[in-house]
Amino acid sequence: MRDAYHDELEALTDRLVEMTRLVRSAVSRSTTALLDADLQLAESVISRDEEVNRLYAEIETSIYEVMATQQPVAVDLRTVITALRMASNLERMGDHAEHIAKVARMRHPESAIPAELRDTFVEMGAIAERLIVKTGSCIVSRDVEMAKELESDDDAMDRLHRRLFRVLLDKGWSHGIESAIDITLVGRYYERYADHAVSVARDVVYLVTGSRYPDAE
Amino acid sequence: MRDAYHDELEALTDRLVEMTRLVRSAVSRSTTALLDADLQLAESVISRDEEVNRLYAEIETSIYEVMATQQPVAVDLRTVITALRMASNLERMGDHAEHIAKVARMRHPESAIPAELRDTFVEMGAIAERLIVKTGSCIVSRDVEMAKELESDDDAMDRLHRRLFRVLLDKGWSHGIESAIDITLVGRYYERYADHAVSVARDVVYLVTGSRYPDAE
Repeated sequence: MRDAYHDELEALTDRLVEMTRLVRSAVSRSTTALLDADLQLAESVISRDEEVNRLYAEIETSIYEVMATQQPVAVDLRTVITALRMASNLERMGDHAEHIAKVARMRHPESAIPAELRDTFVEMGAIAERLIVKTGSCIVSRDVEMAKELESDDDAMDRLHRRLFRVLLDKGWSHGIESAIDITLVGRYYERYADHAVSVARDVVYLVTGSRYPDAE
Repeated sequence: MRDAYHDELEALTDRLVEMTRLVRSAVSRSTTALLDADLQLAESVISRDEEVNRLYAEIETSIYEVMATQQPVAVDLRTVITALRMASNLERMGDHAEHIAKVARMRHPESAIPAELRDTFVEMGAIAERLIVKTGSCIVSRDVEMAKELESDDDAMDRLHRRLFRVLLDKGWSHGIESAIDITLVGRYYERYADHAVSVARDVVYLVTGSRYPDAE
């Protein structure tokens, strides 16, 4: 019984990692769709968000099963509870990719991103992908140091986010209000990726240490 | 033992309701701060978000205690797990109030909201408060019908949110890019209140029925 139980916990981790893979792919495709005004790619992100949601529902169901049939304690209990929250954060990241793809679709055949902001969004997309890959690694390795590193990637995203506003508020901005609204919203979605990734990383630290604030002790 | 256990579950519900009260107050104050450029009120929302976060941490701790020391099953298990998710949604609502207060503070002594959008934000604030009050009632009463009603309040918020964009994109818009960015972000925060409230309401339905999609059965 004990072995089947630990198999279930491992399957839970595998599913979380599978979620990070799906989300990374969605982020990658939505960034390309946004920059290249690729309608087909945008549609694929929108239609395939369902896969992320289904995986989330499966994780939730298996968590209830483990809770109801086993009595996880200590680190096992933290594994199960944090898995629920991690899955919720990853599901939200998938939603943001879908939102970005919808902006790409709405502006097609134009790109929602003017030339002078292209590099910034390329970089934001790259950071978002790196964060998600690291998130997956942290979930598997339970490496507390790596989890803490994620916070500095979040800082890099914040810097790019602030750069967006500087460009939008520059007197030379010639793309009007509609474009500014698109960029404000899309910029916010990229920033939220980083917030969710940090949230997962903090749950990894909590899972391992049993404390939300290990440095403060 | 059984009685102390149910006392703990009730205390959990009480804390969630207390969270809805704090969040409602934060939403109310942040809306006024935003519309009236009231710096003191904005500061009070920002400094008091800590209370919401502390309550969230307390709820989380007590959930772990109940999980580790009792073995909740069936509706009790759902009570505990959904409480964790509800608390997380309420905590996010508090964050949005804080974000709105920060926009108010940044634009002080001006109001971030031009006269022609004042009524729209008054209405968005009123809907947000109503949603949070209903959310608190649903948590206490476990009234599935009331929980489902919340979805239509969410529709009302969506309509107001779309109205914002119509005003921003109207040729008569004379307040420039910075104001458009503020309104885009603030509008999104109000819309998110509704999403989080709906999320809590769906958890109430799940808590009572044991199914995420009771209508589909």
